[in-house]
Amino acid sequence: MARKASLSGFPEYLPAERLVENHVLDTLRTTFELHGFSPIETRSVETIDQLLRKGEIDKEVYAISRLQEEESSKKEKLALHFDLTVPFARYVVENAGYLSFPFSRYQIQKVWRGERPQEGRAREFTQADIDVVGDGDLPFRYDVTLALVVVDALSKLPIPAFKLRVNNRKLAEGFYLGLGLTDTAGVLREIDKLEKIGAEAVATNLRENLGATDNQAAAALALAQIVTEDVSFADRVRELAAQYGAEHELLEQGLAELTEVIAEASKRAPGNVVADLSIARGLDYYTGTVYETVLVGHEKLGSICSGGRYEKLASNGKKTYPGVGLSIGVTRVVARILSQQFATASRAVPSAVYIALTNDEGWSAANDVADALRARGIACEVSATAAKFGKQIKYAEKRGIPFVWFISEKDGALTHEVKDIRSGEQVPADPQTWEPPAEDLHVRIIPAEDLA
Amino acid sequence: MARKASLSGFPEYLPAERLVENHVLDTLRTTFELHGFSPIETRSVETIDQLLRKGEIDKEVYAISRLQEEESSKKEKLALHFDLTVPFARYVVENAGYLSFPFSRYQIQKVWRGERPQEGRAREFTQADIDVVGDGDLPFRYDVTLALVVVDALSKLPIPAFKLRVNNRKLAEGFYLGLGLTDTAGVLREIDKLEKIGAEAVATNLRENLGATDNQAAAALALAQIVTEDVSFADRVRELAAQYGAEHELLEQGLAELTEVIAEASKRAPGNVVADLSIARGLDYYTGTVYETVLVGHEKLGSICSGGRYEKLASNGKKTYPGVGLSIGVTRVVARILSQQFATASRAVPSAVYIALTNDEGWSAANDVADALRARGIACEVSATAAKFGKQIKYAEKRGIPFVWFISEKDGALTHEVKDIRSGEQVPADPQTWEPPAEDLHVRIIPAEDLA
Repeated sequence: MARKASLSGFPEYLPAERLVENHVLDTLRTTFELHGFSPIETRSVETIDQLLRKGEIDKEVYAISRLQEEESSKKEKLALHFDLTVPFARYVVENAGYLSFPFSRYQIQKVWRGERPQEGRAREFTQADIDVVGDGDLPFRYDVTLALVVVDALSKLPIPAFKLRVNNRKLAEGFYLGLGLTDTAGVLREIDKLEKIGAEAVATNLRENLGATDNQAAAALALAQIVTEDVSFADRVRELAAQYGAEHELLEQGLAELTEVIAEASKRAPGNVVADLSIARGLDYYTGTVYETVLVGHEKLGSICSGGRYEKLASNGKKTYPGVGLSIGVTRVVARILSQQFATASRAVPSAVYIALTNDEGWSAANDVADALRARGIACEVSATAAKFGKQIKYAEKRGIPFVWFISEKDGALTHEVKDIRSGEQVPADPQTWEPPAEDLHVRIIPAEDLA
Repeated sequence: MARKASLSGFPEYLPAERLVENHVLDTLRTTFELHGFSPIETRSVETIDQLLRKGEIDKEVYAISRLQEEESSKKEKLALHFDLTVPFARYVVENAGYLSFPFSRYQIQKVWRGERPQEGRAREFTQADIDVVGDGDLPFRYDVTLALVVVDALSKLPIPAFKLRVNNRKLAEGFYLGLGLTDTAGVLREIDKLEKIGAEAVATNLRENLGATDNQAAAALALAQIVTEDVSFADRVRELAAQYGAEHELLEQGLAELTEVIAEASKRAPGNVVADLSIARGLDYYTGTVYETVLVGHEKLGSICSGGRYEKLASNGKKTYPGVGLSIGVTRVVARILSQQFATASRAVPSAVYIALTNDEGWSAANDVADALRARGIACEVSATAAKFGKQIKYAEKRGIPFVWFISEKDGALTHEVKDIRSGEQVPADPQTWEPPAEDLHVRIIPAEDLA
């Protein structure tokens, strides 16, 4: 086959890079399970009808079709899923009779979006989602729990400091309604442009597109400026509300909810969680808490972990399943770890030991050594052909395998020695008992010094 | 969303079933790494040109296209991969400059085929592949190693006894050529029908379609009858060759190669590996060793692990990369484990402990206990709301969580107790030191008694 350039938007890694990705995936999975989340996977395809229910994403969907399918096929059209929330909602409704609610699950899978690839945005990428879904109702406390779970998970990754920014749709909506701005979704859309076009342009839009007064526009903008690492945001919102005469029951609900999240999270994860009242993204999608996460110093990468509360994650017409969830952009995080060398693998292959071959007849004896080492969990490989010691050491060196095992025969008895090819030290060794130092047993993922 | 039936051919599991699948995936991965294989993943899509190079599979391919793509789009058409060998070959050529050869890799991923779904055959399924690929040449010993690696991996799974059946294309081809049958691929195609249509019909086909004499047909059929658990097949082939006057250099090469595989494998994995000279499948695809694996008593399920040697796994026009590999049909194996209950998960959720809530104000203290347990690797979850003890115990019971933790307050001091809800025993416990019994720490996958 002729050499082909890789496809733009479909990342592939070298083995040592894949070891880093696996470390990220393992860390997430282990953490989610420590918090009691159950693993599930859904199929990669959904019917197109199912995918388009939430609207506005039709351009990004990859449809699939059998190459030899007749044009006239009446079968329901299928497409690759573009997130894990829509498939999970379907799964919950289909399997509700077999699940115990509240149901806490994690799901780590590839998703596909036909968008223009760019830094931090691929066409095929991995997401790691956690959601808790209730049957009919779901205690608000899960909104706090979910924030704590992702903070725990992200804290264990070799990445720079991060901020989980939390807001609440009820708070913003209640504040706007209290001001007399009734098109709350419209206001949120304008506020969402704040970072892009600046405060002045947003104020103009609020006045011209939504008929806001100068006072109303100033109040909406002032709300979006509030960012605190503790619950003091609530006092500042109340001051603002008093100043502009904005009173509303939804505002009080939103303040209470966001206060509950920030109070517990700022206690358990100081500095990692902030109340950020500018977070508007997804606010007309979620119904309460919303989350977004940035890597400090890498804000342009975009959010690495977003989510929120849905009053109606899923429904079968009769029953409604509320949920709260967060999705980590694994591919976005891993690509940044690799491109910035936030972490590297201690070696390129799993093997801790390379068993050299002195002569071709010794291959079976070499495999006996390998079996003995593997039985104790020591990864190793056996040379396929006899070669000079120097060549065999080079083989190990090239791959970063720390130890080379030599077997020699004298008067029918085998002698074993193992060489640490980094120090050059070579010592007698017993295949039944020898162990490498703990730090050499498995591939380690070593964080860059300035992250440590 | 309305309830929808699942799609035929796209299996989805309940959480407790997914735990079993994860056990299978973890076991394979760990074993492959113990043998020194490096992890890689390739993208899910290939260009259609790339996929169709090997021919004869166009009907099974799922093409993908952006829903909003213009018809006139001149871009290269993409499709989902239908195996992991074609993508791996492309990967090797693309990344040859960054890989160390011989390169041993494992790859566990989903693949898609638009075939008619049936027992043991899905449209979306997971394969676990191991291959070793050389730059220019690859020692034959890897053909032995690969057999030993999959035997080690399959032996650790909760499945019935299995047989890895090995044959060698050179042996069969040499024998036919020695007989004077020059259309060796044609003979193999007919022999491949043996199980389906029987010996008499195959003999007729050999005579009528390939011009074989009665003697030639009888000899070809007699060869396919040879099955041995040791290297005695070689003597039987030589007798047959002498009887029919079939001599050929390729036959000798094939005998030597197959003997090398069976000699070592029958020593290291007695009973699990057999020489089976009826294995024809894929013989016009592979160039030497071929493997196929059946579960004893479940032969109708088809092969659960197949592969072989390619003289030219990949090539960039100038360089050729020979390879030998095996692919385990993970979904086929897992579906059988689940449908036959070869193994079950000890509980439905990862949590070993459920931390009950006596009163709503105790939630933060309950989370302190959870943090302490998790720091020691004990998976647990905290009740989101205070409820009667009975209700909280039911919550744990329903999920199979073995322990419920109770916190009570007296004169400002907290008292901790943990109850094993299976025995009813409740004892004082310290969140900083308490450990569950080792067998309750993680979900265990318990093999059925008749497999143990």
